[in-house]
Amino acid sequence: MSRDREDVLAANAAFYAAFGSGDMDAMAEIWAETGPVACLHPGAPLLVGRDPVLNSWSHILGASEMPEIACFEPHAHLMGHSAFVTCYERLGGVGGAVLIATNIFIRKNDRWRMSHHHASPAAVAPPERAGDAKPTVLH
Amino acid sequence: MSRDREDVLAANAAFYAAFGSGDMDAMAEIWAETGPVACLHPGAPLLVGRDPVLNSWSHILGASEMPEIACFEPHAHLMGHSAFVTCYERLGGVGGAVLIATNIFIRKNDRWRMSHHHASPAAVAPPERAGDAKPTVLH
Repeated sequence: MSRDREDVLAANAAFYAAFGSGDMDAMAEIWAETGPVACLHPGAPLLVGRDPVLNSWSHILGASEMPEIACFEPHAHLMGHSAFVTCYERLGGVGGAVLIATNIFIRKNDRWRMSHHHASPAAVAPPERAGDAKPTVLH
Repeated sequence: MSRDREDVLAANAAFYAAFGSGDMDAMAEIWAETGPVACLHPGAPLLVGRDPVLNSWSHILGASEMPEIACFEPHAHLMGHSAFVTCYERLGGVGGAVLIATNIFIRKNDRWRMSHHHASPAAVAPPERAGDAKPTVLH
């Protein structure tokens, strides 16, 4: 696996780790400080800019009943200084809602940081047979 | 408006023009020939690679009852040699389903071509008051 691919997938995993653990400081570190920042939460209107996007995450991570989240089958698509990852998300453990996401990252000073997150309902569940899906269960 | 922003929005408009007119040759021109190509049609599994993605568009554009499609409120987010556009889509004319999309473009030889399209249901309709939404009705 190329170094870029590995680093982008690590940034994507860090996003889901921050999401799953409700760690707002880590979430703020993950999003880009320069360049575009936008977010499309499922069914919600577009958020543009670091402050509105981080405020939305602060509300989500501050909820008293945070669902479990797991990321499945992340696939990194490299474009030089930017990249996007497509992956499945499962909310609420086994039998929970399955979403599909596009996560865009930009590289600045050798760090990949998130520029955009778009999550939406998936009609098709990811495969989860042993040895096939390699789910990253975060907590 | 910067030249890049203008060009990216023109590439996004060309995508919806090809979609709306069912022009498969134009659609094939819009998608990148080099670099990643992926597509997330609403509720469908991920498609990766130029051939699977163009095949999916060939099926969609070849359907006997193609719905009208209009793009509202395109917003270009620039990242150097790549960019993404977020916009609303209305299928089937006034009162039709409203979707929200992330469209990723990459620049090669001064041309912006599509690398990824992710469309999903929007819970919130875009504003459509006269002088506010500036819809691009394609046909």
